[in-house]
Parts: sequence; C-alpha cells; structure tokens
Amino acid sequence: MSFILPHISRTEAAQKFKIVRQHSEKLCQSLEIEDYIIQTTAEASPVKWNLAHVTWFYETFILNVHTKNYQDFHPQFRYLFNSYYEQVGKYFPRPQRGLLSRPTVKEVYRYRAYVDEQMLHLFETATEEQWKDIAFRLMIGLNHEQQHQELLLTDLKYNLAFNPLRPAYREDLAISNRYSMPDLKWFEFEGGLDFIGFEGNGFAYDNESPRHQIFIQPFKLSSRLVTNGEYLEFIENGGYQRPELWLSDGWSTLKQTGWNAPLYWEKLEGTWWQMTLGGMRKVALNEPVCHISYYEADAFATWKEKRLPTEIEWEIAAWDLKMEGNFRENDFLHPIAAEEKEGLLQMFGDVWEWTQTPYTPYPNYRPQTGALGEYNGKFMCNQMVLRGGSCVTPIDHIRVTYRNFFYPNERWQFKGFRLAEGV
Amino acid sequence: MSFILPHISRTEAAQKFKIVRQHSEKLCQSLEIEDYIIQTTAEASPVKWNLAHVTWFYETFILNVHTKNYQDFHPQFRYLFNSYYEQVGKYFPRPQRGLLSRPTVKEVYRYRAYVDEQMLHLFETATEEQWKDIAFRLMIGLNHEQQHQELLLTDLKYNLAFNPLRPAYREDLAISNRYSMPDLKWFEFEGGLDFIGFEGNGFAYDNESPRHQIFIQPFKLSSRLVTNGEYLEFIENGGYQRPELWLSDGWSTLKQTGWNAPLYWEKLEGTWWQMTLGGMRKVALNEPVCHISYYEADAFATWKEKRLPTEIEWEIAAWDLKMEGNFRENDFLHPIAAEEKEGLLQMFGDVWEWTQTPYTPYPNYRPQTGALGEYNGKFMCNQMVLRGGSCVTPIDHIRVTYRNFFYPNERWQFKGFRLAEGV
Amino acid sequence: MSFILPHISRTEAAQKFKIVRQHSEKLCQSLEIEDYIIQTTAEASPVKWNLAHVTWFYETFILNVHTKNYQDFHPQFRYLFNSYYEQVGKYFPRPQRGLLSRPTVKEVYRYRAYVDEQMLHLFETATEEQWKDIAFRLMIGLNHEQQHQELLLTDLKYNLAFNPLRPAYREDLAISNRYSMPDLKWFEFEGGLDFIGFEGNGFAYDNESPRHQIFIQPFKLSSRLVTNGEYLEFIENGGYQRPELWLSDGWSTLKQTGWNAPLYWEKLEGTWWQMTLGGMRKVALNEPVCHISYYEADAFATWKEKRLPTEIEWEIAAWDLKMEGNFRENDFLHPIAAEEKEGLLQMFGDVWEWTQTPYTPYPNYRPQTGALGEYNGKFMCNQMVLRGGSCVTPIDHIRVTYRNFFYPNERWQFKGFRLAEGV
Amino acid sequence: MSFILPHISRTEAAQKFKIVRQHSEKLCQSLEIEDYIIQTTAEASPVKWNLAHVTWFYETFILNVHTKNYQDFHPQFRYLFNSYYEQVGKYFPRPQRGLLSRPTVKEVYRYRAYVDEQMLHLFETATEEQWKDIAFRLMIGLNHEQQHQELLLTDLKYNLAFNPLRPAYREDLAISNRYSMPDLKWFEFEGGLDFIGFEGNGFAYDNESPRHQIFIQPFKLSSRLVTNGEYLEFIENGGYQRPELWLSDGWSTLKQTGWNAPLYWEKLEGTWWQMTLGGMRKVALNEPVCHISYYEADAFATWKEKRLPTEIEWEIAAWDLKMEGNFRENDFLHPIAAEEKEGLLQMFGDVWEWTQTPYTPYPNYRPQTGALGEYNGKFMCNQMVLRGGSCVTPIDHIRVTYRNFFYPNERWQFKGFRLAEGV
Repeated sequence: MSFILPHISRTEAAQKFKIVRQHSEKLCQSLEIEDYIIQTTAEASPVKWNLAHVTWFYETFILNVHTKNYQDFHPQFRYLFNSYYEQVGKYFPRPQRGLLSRPTVKEVYRYRAYVDEQMLHLFETATEEQWKDIAFRLMIGLNHEQQHQELLLTDLKYNLAFNPLRPAYREDLAISNRYSMPDLKWFEFEGGLDFIGFEGNGFAYDNESPRHQIFIQPFKLSSRLVTNGEYLEFIENGGYQRPELWLSDGWSTLKQTGWNAPLYWEKLEGTWWQMTLGGMRKVALNEPVCHISYYEADAFATWKEKRLPTEIEWEIAAWDLKMEGNFRENDFLHPIAAEEKEGLLQMFGDVWEWTQTPYTPYPNYRPQTGALGEYNGKFMCNQMVLRGGSCVTPIDHIRVTYRNFFYPNERWQFKGFRLAEGV
Repeated sequence: MSFILPHISRTEAAQKFKIVRQHSEKLCQSLEIEDYIIQTTAEASPVKWNLAHVTWFYETFILNVHTKNYQDFHPQFRYLFNSYYEQVGKYFPRPQRGLLSRPTVKEVYRYRAYVDEQMLHLFETATEEQWKDIAFRLMIGLNHEQQHQELLLTDLKYNLAFNPLRPAYREDLAISNRYSMPDLKWFEFEGGLDFIGFEGNGFAYDNESPRHQIFIQPFKLSSRLVTNGEYLEFIENGGYQRPELWLSDGWSTLKQTGWNAPLYWEKLEGTWWQMTLGGMRKVALNEPVCHISYYEADAFATWKEKRLPTEIEWEIAAWDLKMEGNFRENDFLHPIAAEEKEGLLQMFGDVWEWTQTPYTPYPNYRPQTGALGEYNGKFMCNQMVLRGGSCVTPIDHIRVTYRNFFYPNERWQFKGFRLAEGV
Repeated sequence: MSFILPHISRTEAAQKFKIVRQHSEKLCQSLEIEDYIIQTTAEASPVKWNLAHVTWFYETFILNVHTKNYQDFHPQFRYLFNSYYEQVGKYFPRPQRGLLSRPTVKEVYRYRAYVDEQMLHLFETATEEQWKDIAFRLMIGLNHEQQHQELLLTDLKYNLAFNPLRPAYREDLAISNRYSMPDLKWFEFEGGLDFIGFEGNGFAYDNESPRHQIFIQPFKLSSRLVTNGEYLEFIENGGYQRPELWLSDGWSTLKQTGWNAPLYWEKLEGTWWQMTLGGMRKVALNEPVCHISYYEADAFATWKEKRLPTEIEWEIAAWDLKMEGNFRENDFLHPIAAEEKEGLLQMFGDVWEWTQTPYTPYPNYRPQTGALGEYNGKFMCNQMVLRGGSCVTPIDHIRVTYRNFFYPNERWQFKGFRLAEGV
Repeated sequence: MSFILPHISRTEAAQKFKIVRQHSEKLCQSLEIEDYIIQTTAEASPVKWNLAHVTWFYETFILNVHTKNYQDFHPQFRYLFNSYYEQVGKYFPRPQRGLLSRPTVKEVYRYRAYVDEQMLHLFETATEEQWKDIAFRLMIGLNHEQQHQELLLTDLKYNLAFNPLRPAYREDLAISNRYSMPDLKWFEFEGGLDFIGFEGNGFAYDNESPRHQIFIQPFKLSSRLVTNGEYLEFIENGGYQRPELWLSDGWSTLKQTGWNAPLYWEKLEGTWWQMTLGGMRKVALNEPVCHISYYEADAFATWKEKRLPTEIEWEIAAWDLKMEGNFRENDFLHPIAAEEKEGLLQMFGDVWEWTQTPYTPYPNYRPQTGALGEYNGKFMCNQMVLRGGSCVTPIDHIRVTYRNFFYPNERWQFKGFRLAEGV
C-alpha cells in the first residue's frame, strides 16, 4: 500500500509547485527576523526550520535522486534539516532546533530559491521515465509542505504565546461576526457493513488505504462541535478536579502539568481570555473549544455520559458531505461558531476532531519501501486519529479519508471534538 | 456493561476464597523476610505490598460495605494499600512502596488472617440480599488476587534479577525436557462476519463485553510462538541496530534504554544466559522468546515481513481450542518449547501474546459505576492488548475472551508473540 | 600529612576491636529484619549496608593485605560493599543499596563473625613489622566503624521518618527533664596569631593536620546553641519567605524543596511535632534546633544580624574546654537543653555545629597515598566544616580538632549552630 | 562594608557612561539579528538579554530612584530583564531567556537610547545631594555593564560553538605570532603576616573589602600559566581516566558529562582543534590552556604533585606587579603564549586563574543594604575565587584585589590556572 497519486503534467506540476512554495513565504510576511528563530518546546519547531526542512525534502527525495551531479546547497543542511528519516542519515536533535542562529533567515530564503530553480529546471529536463517518479515524489513533497504550513502556524502560535508580551502573529486577521450558535442535535446512523479508506484518483497518503470493508454498530453523532461555553460548564462543574471522569493517564498528566483549562486560556481579573494568532481575545462561548488534549475531550464526554466517535463512524458520517468549512483560506486562523443551519455541521475545518480510535494500520497496509516509508507508518503506535482539518489547513489539502494523528496529551494543534453515542 | 458473574453458593464461595487466599501465601514459602520488602522499579511492587493490597481490596469493597461497624485492622492501611482507586481516597505513591519497613511482614500476615476471619464470618451472617452483592464483589476480589499472584511472581523475578547475586526464587522448579520443537506452519482463516467478546455464565471482566459482531479480512496465523532461536537470528542480523525495522517510539525507547536483547538476557563469555525464577540458565533455543516489549515484537515481525495478529484474529482463532497449556500449575514458571504435534499450539499459557490491537472499549462498553469501575476502564488508552495467559497464570483464571493490557515498552511480564499475515 | 596514630599493643587492639564491633550490633537490637533493608534516599544507606561496609573495610585494607592466602567471605562483597574507593575497584551504586534483599541480614552477621575471627587471629599471628601497619590501619578502621555507627542512626532515623506510620527506633530512650535554658551570653576572643590543627599522640584523621599558624581578627561567640524557640521566631517572622535573608543557592534550594521548617518538623493541628529516634514528640522550645541545612543556619544568622563562626574561631574557643556534653553514651539520641551554668556551653555533643568555613586542605596537607587517601582528601570541595560532635557520636570518637563536613543542603545529620560576630 | 567609590564629576561621569555604553554596542557590530536571540544553555544568556539587562540596571537603580515621575520604557521590562534581584520583584526564568523573539533587537536598541538620554539628562539636572548617590550607583552600573560585556562575549562564544557550522564571531581578530614560550620557573615567597583586600580611592566591589591582616606559610608560584601543551600531556597520560587524580565531585561530573578535554576542543582526524571567537583553530601548544573547570585544574595539579594557589597567595604575589597583559583591548579575544622575559608572567589578562579558595566573605564584611546588596554577597557559597582577568576583560575594569567567582564545574568563561606549592 503506497501513496496514491494522480497523473500530473509538467506544466501543472510547475504551477502547483510555485503556488505552494510561495504560500509558505507569504505566511511569513508579518514576521520579524527574531520570530523565525525561537522554539519554546520540542514540538514547536522554529519557522526557519520549517521553511528549510520542506526544502530539504525536495532536495533529498527528488534532486539528489534525479538531477545528475546535483550540488547540495550546503553540505551540512542534510544533517540540519532532516527531521526524522533514519534511512537518510543522522539528524540534528529536534529539541535543539531553536538553538541555531545560522544559517540566517536570509540564507534559508536563498536555499529555497536555489532549490526552486533546480526543481523547475528538472521539471523541464527530466526524461519521461524520470517524470513518473518525480511526479510521485513531488506530490508527496507538496502535501508535506502544506502540512508544514499548518505546523508553521501552530508552532508559531505556541512560540509567541510563550512570551509574556503575547505578541500577535498578525493584527489584521478576519474576525467572525457570528454571535449565536445552533442548538445541538443528534444524527443517527444505522451501522452495518460498509467501507472506509481511500480509493480512486487524486493524491492520498499511504495510511488512508487500502479501502476495506468494516462492520459497525448503529450510532449517533452530534450536529456540531463542542463549544467553549459548554466546556466552561465542565470546568465550572469541577471537571479538572474529578478523577473519576478521567482516563488514568489523563489524570496523571493533569496532576503533572497543572492543567485547569484549554491551552492558551488565561483568567485575567475574573474573565477568560485566550491567545490567538491575532493576539489576546476574550473566550467566545459559541466558538468551538480548541487546543485541548484527547484526555480532556474524553473526560468531557464521560461527564456528559457520551463518548467520542470512532474514526470509522466519523468517516461514514462525513462521506457524502460537501468539502466546505472554516479553512485557512477564510483567514480567520481561528475556529468560529457553527452556522445556524440544518445538517451535520463543522465536520470539515475549524478544528481537528479527536476520535477514540488509536492510529493503527488499515488491514493489509504496508508502508512504502525506502525512506519515504517512514513518512507515516512508523508512527502507528501510541497516537490517536483526528479527522476533518482545521482553520489553518489549506482546503485543497484535506480529504474525507484523511487521517491525522497526535499523542493524546498534545494540545498545540487546533484540536477539538464532537460527541457520539451508541443507539 | 459490568463484570459478568456466576451464581455461587456461600459454601462454594468460602471454599474458593480459602483456596485463593492460601495460594498467595504458598507462593511465598521459599522467601526470606528481606525478599518481601524490596521494589527495584516503580512497576515491580514488593511482595509485602501485593499481599496486603489484595487484602485491602476485600476490606474496602466488601467488609466496609457489608459488615456492620466494621473495624479496620489499621487506620492507615487504607492509605498505604490502596493502589489507584481515586474514588476511595488518597493512596501512597506507587514508586515508594519499597521504602517502608513497617508494617512488618508478620503484621501483614496478621492483617490477612484478620480479614480472612471477617470475610468467612460475613459469608455466614450476610442476608440474602447482601449475599448477591457480596458474591459479585467477591468474584472480582478473587480474580483480582489471582492477578496479583501473577504480579507477585513477575515483580519478584524483576526484583531478584536486579541483584548482582542473581538469587533464585526457588531452586526446585520443574524443568522442561523438550529438546526440539515443531516446524512453523501457517493456519488460514477465511474472515468475514463473526462475533467476539464474553457472553454467558461464569466470571468475566467488564472489558470483555459486550459480545459484539465484527467483520475481518482473511488472515493467517503461525502455528506456534516465536522462539529464542528465531529471535537470536534477529539479534545477530542487526535487529537492534536497524531503525527501519522499528516503530518510531520503539526506536527512541531503544536508544534511551540501550536495549540489545530481551529483558533478563546476559551474554557471559560469549554465551547467552537468562535470569529465571529458578536462577540463571542458558537461553534454550526452542523455548518461546519472553520478556520482550511490543516494540521488539513488532520490529521482529517487520524484519520477517509479517505482522502481529489483532486481538480479533487471535480470539477467532482460539475460540474452539481446548484450554490447556503451560500454566502456573505445571510449576515450570517459565515458558517451554511447543509440543511436537499438529494444530495451533501454545495459544494458551507460556507467554502473554502481544497483539497489534490497542486496548480500547468494545462498542457500547460502559465501566461499572463507582470505584470498581476504575478496575479496567480508565486504562483504555496507550496500552496494547495481550491474550492467552502465561506460565505464571493460574489456569482457572484465564478465558478465551480475556484481555490483558500493558504499555508497549513494558517487558517485565511473561510476554512473547506469534506472527500473522494477510491472505 | 597522613593519619596520626598512637602506639597500641595487640591486646589493647583486640579489646578495642571487640568493643567497637559489638557496639555496632548492639545498636541494632531493637530492629526488625525489615528495618535493615530500606533506603529512602541516596544518602541514607540501609542498616544492613552499614554493617557490611565497615566489615568490608577491615577485609579490604587489612586482611587482604596481611593475611596470607586470605579467602574472601564472598567474591562479590568487594563490589557490593565498597562505598567509594575508586582505587580498590568498582562499586555498587550508592542510590541502589536499598534494592538488594540478598545477602540476608543473617548472612551479613555471618560475614561480620567471619571477619572478626580472621582479624583476631591476625592480631596474634602477625609479625612485628606487619603489626605496625596493621595497628595503623586498624585505628582507621575502628574510627571508620564509629562514624558508621553514627550514620547507622542518622540514616535509620531518616528511613523510619519517611514512613507515614512514624515508627520509633526505640521506645525506651532516655528523655531530658530540663525545662528551661540559660540566657544567651557572648564570649569575646581577642584574635591574633595562634595555631590550629592536630599534633601529638592519639589518633586523628589526616585532614586535621598539619597543625599550623593562623591569624584571626577578634570575635565574639554565643554561649550556647540556637534553640527551637529562637528558630520558631525566625519561622514566624517569615524567615522562609524572605529571599533577602538567604544565600542565592539556599533560596533556590528552598524553592525547589518547599522547605518551611527543619527536617522532621510537622505541624499537626496547630502544634509543631518532630520525629525523633524515640518516635514523634512535641518540639521543645529550649532544645537546640537540629536537622537544618547550612542555608537555614546562615539565613537565621543574617536575620539576627550575626554570622556563623569560622572553624578557626570555633577551634580557638573550644581549645581549653573539657570534653563533655550530650553524646551517644547519654542514650538520649536527641539534643537536649543547655545546662543552666556559666561558660561556653554545648560546644561538644548535642549537634554538629555548622561553621562558615568551606572544607579545604590545611596548608601543606597531602592525602595519604593509596586508596586510604580517598578517605578524606577527595571531598575537599563544595562542603562545609562542622565541629563538636552530636548526641549520636561516641565520646571517644571526637576531638577538638575534628573536622566533619557535609554539603550545605544536607539536613539528615544532627546539625545545628551557634552565632558569632566580629568585635 | 560596601562598594568603594571615587569622587567623580558630572562631566567625567557622562563621558565614562557614553564610552561604556557605546562599547557594548560596538561589540555587536559583526552580529546578525539571529545571533542576538539564542541561548544554548542556562548560563549563556542571549546577546539581546545582556544588552537590555544592563540598561534595566540603570533604569531600576538610578532612574526609578532619582528621576521624578520617571516613565519606564516598557512596563514589563522590569520583569523581563531583572536577572536575580529578589528585592526588586519577580524575574523571568534564566533558562528561558532565549525563548523570546520580542522585544526585537531594534526595540532593545531603542530601549538603550531612551535610557541613555534619560541618564544624561539626569546627570545635568540632579541636585548635589542626589548626585552623590547617583555617582555611587552609576559606578556600580558601569562596572556591571563591563562585566556583561565580558559575559556577552563568553556567552556568544558558547552559543556559536554549539552550532555544527561553528560560525566565527569575527573573522578579523588579531592573531598572536608568538611561536615559543618561556621555560617554567618558580618564584618563592616567604609568607608571614601581611594584608589583602581593597583600600583607598577608586572603585571596588564590596566583596574586596575590608582590607585585613592575614598570615600565610611560605609558598612558591610558577612563573606562567599552564599551557595547552602541558595539558595535552595530562590528557595523553590518561588524566581523564584516573579517578585517583580527581576530587570526588569532579570525578562524578566527569562521568556524567563525558569530559575528555577542555571545553571547545575537538579532535578532527587526529588533530586537536578548538573553537575560538575567530572560528575553528588548531590548538597551539604554547598558549595557556583555557575553558577548563576547577576540577580539571585541580586534577592536573594533583597529577603534577603540585597544587593551585590560594587567593591570598595570588594577591600577595601580584601586589606589586604592573597592570598589563593580554586584555580585551589587544583584540585577540583569545589567550596567547607568555612573552619570553623574566618575572612572574601572565598574572593579569589571558585567563581568569582558578585559586583553591572558596568564595567567602572577608572578615567583617557586610553586604550593602537593599537590593544592591544582592550583587555579590548572596553568592558566597559553593563557588571558587578566580583572579586576574582575561583576554575579554577590559583593562580598566580589573584590579589586583578583584575577586571573580564561579562554580567549580563551569567552563564557559576564559579560565585557566598556574601551579603553586609549599616550601
């Protein structure tokens, strides 16, 4: 089971390549040089590293393979900007990425320009036989860069929020003017035999296939995401002080960390505020709760005597829905209240939805051979599946079969949840 | 979904209670006082603690509920011997259980005798209505004590093995005289719709139910457990030096711990030895490999281009098999080579078998209400399911639907694995 | 500069040896087997280890040197019971001494008996030339064992106090009946040229010599130790909340540890209690404050606008005093109030007195060559000198020139202080 | 005993202030913005922080005291740029100084300009009475800034050296052309009564006084610093593998850290290189060994059967020497070989010399009252005295009585040593 890839012409490829590459840089327009450098926790890589790493990816997996006598931009960048590909060579330790002042930001931009030029040249000069493999690797590379565009924003949010000055990433972000939200409804699904997983044309990651048959019990899914207002009730009901609501690992995480609210929430003079990419804002009750761990989502569900959906349930329910929602293109870069309308809402965009499904291989899955096989497969342990994309995901990156995965204690992505229950 | 329990008469209950209680003490006959006290890692509780904790369980969940004006044996034992039941009150920190010289071992035996007497008295004097609840709680308590009998041995093995003198738990253990092993065969299963989970009479834990319908793909299962000899090939083939074979979390665990062989293996002057409950012995090539982590099992399977079975596959395959194998009753207290005969061998006993299934709730599972609900449910995250029991499990404790669970890095239980693959 | 040693006859030596050896065992008469095993912090070694280590000392430094074809009692005891002598070979890690159930306590007593017998035999059979060296090493060994008798009690106190049951070491300890204390007076010393350090006959450690000339400014010394009552004022005056009173390293230790009173103090329902070797007792206001760190002593002195004495001042002041005080022989095993009489009180016994002098070599000091040189010299960095012995020191072990030394954060010895100031 | 201060006119003060302030900025001329931000270990603060902190010092201790209605440049800079003054308020944690991208470097320069302007204005407008106190505080502030100029370079060296690219701070540094070195000679001093400590006009820190009488034994001092060549012999003689040469705390530090050479040394293809502020250079055998800990200096001395000098010996020996040496003004920013001439060489400049004296108060020392008293006094524990200044110390900052102090394990300053012995 490997990555699934569409046919793509050289012209289309070059076009798409330029768009994605430019977008990474566009995301950085509001930054100071200093903002590119810092890393305040192992997970939140510096902007500079994100920009260089995605470039390294093309250099390593395409240029070094297909350009004859390719000259690396810098001999040590292989080491500095490899993330975790063991089969490619040693890599600089992740928690120390923010400890390097050199290469400078300017040099990283030069690195990008160099690789862009080499890539576009290769698009033109590659043989037909090469092109097939290049197109395949390129599609992975572009999707990879899009993932890092999302990470660039989530990491940056974390790194800025750490600063007592709470500087905004951008002062000019769009702000939602929805002041209410629809009532919660329940949609019932009958279960039985069905299929999940990717099949067909278009790009998909290897972990989304093979499409395979499954059997599930009937279930109900709530019509929208859990809101800040609902979550606040949980807090005020002593949710963070009641061990009986929590998974054992969740409770010990809570005791170690002192969690008492979602990440980025701060109570200032009696009012809850939260850090956003637009700076500090009051917590809006009708917006989806965001930046919570799996443990918190699960404890909330237990408190409500519900549960989280499985990834199978989520995919079955979402299968026929139109791909629309609050994505990066909206330029909120923040989850917004559900629209007052019928139907299963907010399935795509706003926040990645925690499911109760651990991230494991689909039946008969096998990772891609070689170093690219390390992309997804080696993480299939100890992580949970999230679905649907978020307000910082580009819309052309997501699919109904898309499986994101994070450790249950991680909160720095835009993560929320909806409730489910049996019938 | 709660624990599933048989009808049991007062006489039967008293009988069973005495047998289980005596067995815990019988397991300690060969020990010195000093051996009861030590704890060399957070996971491996002292013998003394295991003996007291199982007693606390009856005191807390039965005597304090059903005996009028019950006098606790000691006011602080509630705190000292509670393991992790948050709803019952505070508990002494697990990693510090080996730091207490008092109560003495003698006092703990007095504690046991006191609770035994109170329990047997209660069996006689309880009302009919009380009896139903007592029988329910008793069955959990006895199964709980049996689990701790297994832990008592695995913890003790760890604690003795830590000592450079490598003292044996017992010098008089039975030793297997099987000097060969059957060839590996593959059994094919056709998949499709089926059911798993417990239903019917007899005791079962809540996590084994509800019995529910599932659908699986066809699969093949190997006829016996992976042996030390096969595992040694993996080691000699550089298994512990090849990151491409490992899950990402497994590889970082390996790098942190320096693992290069199963737990308890030591190379002395060119020969592999292993610590057993009978002291140091040479590694026998035809015995099942034991005391390995999920990560090691998974890496071995990847190396063989196979995979581990899911817990569904395991249960489907084991469903019709006779419950027999190398259990505690054999008095080997060590896994032995498979018998040279036809069929799916070693499914029960010898070693708990790692499955590739994370430990999560069955559809429509709900934990027992109250503190007893903490028994299983709150651990349904970050752990993997193991099946089949081991050479230190009592045979009347195990079932085909029994779900054991441990973190993927833990090695101190008797754990091994068999291979599976798709069709 | 090496250890300074008296002439001693074989008969005297045998006599002294028996007395010291028996005393170690006598100290253990009230213990349960379990009490010998535990170690609740790296510093507080198990009783079993203390008993075996002092025995190892004779075996290593005398029997292995002077007994022809000496057979070690057990081949691995060299490794298990070496404390820190790098030149003798590897040693078992200190923090793990409490993790060994074997050898059993009984075996350790057999080890002691074996070495005793070998030693007494050697006393009789050694040549005259050997005897000189044996006598030299024996005196170190006996003083070493006396130090470990003190440690045995201080370590045991720590290990028992850790237990929520707060078990007493002995219920039958003597208890002081002094209900008042003398007023604090100040003794003035004129300073100038003088000498400190050991010279003459009798045993002394190498770190007490050479006796050498010094020059000091005039100073004043308080007549008695600081009491619990005085220390309580410091606590109630916010002493533990005022960083300006503390050394920088002291304040960060306080913040890390949460110290808010001396070690072993507990406030129960509004009253201060403290753990003693006789169990829990109310804090007596007229007794010397005990079990405090250098940082706390220094902060108290700063609060009082005084300072701690230097070790030179202490030795000058104590030089002519009679060696008497509350030592182990009194069987209080706890500091007691000063007697109501004239003079510089409590200079010996009760508590080791912190001085403001870091532990460094005297001018022209050189450590003994060979492994015995590791006894004192290699610790001459990062520790502070304490003087005068304590209520658990045997009186025939102490001298006016005796230099004890501990890290400034350590509290588990019987340590207190008196105040000094310039003139 | 407080800081000792000269009379200084307003004009002189303004002049001196401008020079010192400009020099801090001059030191940064070769830097990229990125280089200002990073902090690769708790000790090595970012350049940005150093620039802001010295500015905060004037703001806090002068402008906020003497300028009526003084407006802080930014309300949170008090918190962000306080280093450790507990009496001034809370401070941002030291290990996290490199995690802040804001304020930007540009803003910090604006902060500096603002404070400079305010200061110069205050110099002109202060009353005569104010001026006395301002001059006092100013002198501390300027010396403080000079200390941070040294730290700026040592911290930057550490932070750049961490980078696998080993970027130079400046490519244009002066390089010494001394290719030999004088033979080692010994100077003998007769000891006896003498005085040490500061007295007289001119600025001195409080810890250098009171000048007081001392008595010392005769001693010998080596004529020059220990060189790389001599140190290499120690390494090649197994110095880092022989525990008998080391202090106990030194040996355990070595085992934890894996030290096997001075900081910044790297063996590349058989040759020793070292990182310098001018980038990677071969280790020159005739240069003083640098960037070593007290433990290494002490182990070397033990190996040579010598010892380190005390700070008293050093000061007595240096008393009459001319203040000249390899200081920052030479623009080597690296220690150089001793000149081939007679006399006690290299006493000033090149490297701070470890003495065997722990940093404690001089007799009758009392720290300054108020927050400025935290400057030196609270560090008088666990640190060792170093003397003489280094190649990154400004010459007008140093004095023969100057006491620098660091923990014995710290290596990132320019530290070396010379040998001493008794007579």
